[in-house]
Amino acid sequence: MEVIRTPKAMQQRALELKREGCVIGFVPTMGFLHEGHLSLMRLARARCDVLVASIFVNPAQFGPTEDLDAYPRSFERDEALCEREGVDIVFYPDAGNMYADDASVWVDEESLSGVLCGVAREGHFRGVCTVVAKLFNLVQPGLAVFGEKDAQQLRIIERMVRDLNFPVDIIRGPIIREPDGLAMSSRNKYLSGRQREDALCLRKSLDQAEELFGLGERDAKVLRQAMADLIDPVPGAEIEYIEIVDDASLAAVDGINGVVLAALAVRFGATRLIDNAMLHV
Amino acid sequence: MEVIRTPKAMQQRALELKREGCVIGFVPTMGFLHEGHLSLMRLARARCDVLVASIFVNPAQFGPTEDLDAYPRSFERDEALCEREGVDIVFYPDAGNMYADDASVWVDEESLSGVLCGVAREGHFRGVCTVVAKLFNLVQPGLAVFGEKDAQQLRIIERMVRDLNFPVDIIRGPIIREPDGLAMSSRNKYLSGRQREDALCLRKSLDQAEELFGLGERDAKVLRQAMADLIDPVPGAEIEYIEIVDDASLAAVDGINGVVLAALAVRFGATRLIDNAMLHV
Repeated sequence: MEVIRTPKAMQQRALELKREGCVIGFVPTMGFLHEGHLSLMRLARARCDVLVASIFVNPAQFGPTEDLDAYPRSFERDEALCEREGVDIVFYPDAGNMYADDASVWVDEESLSGVLCGVAREGHFRGVCTVVAKLFNLVQPGLAVFGEKDAQQLRIIERMVRDLNFPVDIIRGPIIREPDGLAMSSRNKYLSGRQREDALCLRKSLDQAEELFGLGERDAKVLRQAMADLIDPVPGAEIEYIEIVDDASLAAVDGINGVVLAALAVRFGATRLIDNAMLHV
Repeated sequence: MEVIRTPKAMQQRALELKREGCVIGFVPTMGFLHEGHLSLMRLARARCDVLVASIFVNPAQFGPTEDLDAYPRSFERDEALCEREGVDIVFYPDAGNMYADDASVWVDEESLSGVLCGVAREGHFRGVCTVVAKLFNLVQPGLAVFGEKDAQQLRIIERMVRDLNFPVDIIRGPIIREPDGLAMSSRNKYLSGRQREDALCLRKSLDQAEELFGLGERDAKVLRQAMADLIDPVPGAEIEYIEIVDDASLAAVDGINGVVLAALAVRFGATRLIDNAMLHV
């Protein structure tokens, strides 16, 4: 396994591989890898000749009050996990090499970004789109895998690929959960023992929405209320949003008719967790 | 020479060529080709294996009050000129194939775009950056040639390539002029006989700035005034801007110290012409 630390070297290597006819598979991550990331690597590994994983905590997608400096990092452990998953190249750049001091070009998504996580995290999806565009240009993938846990991010990336004509197939990786149902996230490590237990309310509320939907409930307001009823009583759980949105447009729906996404963000102290489920007949 | 009319077919062909190890050279145009465009094709031709020219009047870079519908078009003539210059592939898409109805992803440059032409043409450079990003992804060039006549556009594209890490060398093509000095432009055809003569004041004012600079004048205000003095007396010439800006940052300068760009935009009736010159010791 190769570790490449500069954008220039990564791009040269990628262009070389493409000239040789290789299909490059790509899994972009912010490191502190867990089973969720590894599942994405396995999906990519089965579909490509050369597998590249990037580890880059992208400053552009953190707000001024967010946890950029505190974001957990563990490169040696991540490196070993990548090696075990058959990654061929780990791209591990410095922020200083990725963004010029006078960087002034940004990729903006203006339809799907203003709802759900985009409300509280202003500028977050601009940072995500910009870094993913940069990484696609550096890594030259034919396919890239993104997790469904970040449902809004996934749809925004799919939109960016369509609208900017990136020659990249986007593969959706299913949410990976702990045995008790908590969606895996690098941020789970921030949770205290008590918060870790309380955090199960996210998955429970989605189970409840799925159950009601399965019984024929099509009123989004009823589903949202049923979800909130399972979270409100949890001390220390602060709902940021609970939404039922159209799966393609991410617009809020009243009566459910077609595929929707039930999505929520809940804070436990300083830690913000998200989860979601697709509801369809 | 091949003519490709859909984005998908263009991209497939380009990826195929890259797998074969070809270096693709690219000249994006809005058609109605003149000697300026052809000079860019010659610069590219000498540096690549496969030469692609695009002909696409990009709606996203025209403002609501601008000349999108009136913009001159002449595909058969353009096709013959491309063939004569050794173009291998003409990419000639429909606007409907290039932009989805619900397109929502845009490339924004936020430092160089707010001055010069960006003042009167709000959204113009967003449209330019977005379509060039799309075309780069579709055509997969290793190098692309842009003309120095559109000096601000050229610098914004160079910035985009740097900030989004496109693997594309940008080649600057010198301004090509009519024998009497008027910079070639598809919009020159809008000019009446009288306006055509009057339009020489752009080049004359730049000559004057270059002469004064050569004599040691370093006060930008003096140069701007000398330029304006040659245009103000021309009946029907309406100055949009006359600026002396830093060549890299495009920020207005007072005392000249380093490379600057003297740039101006002048309207003759509904027709807007631009021209520029670099001043350096």
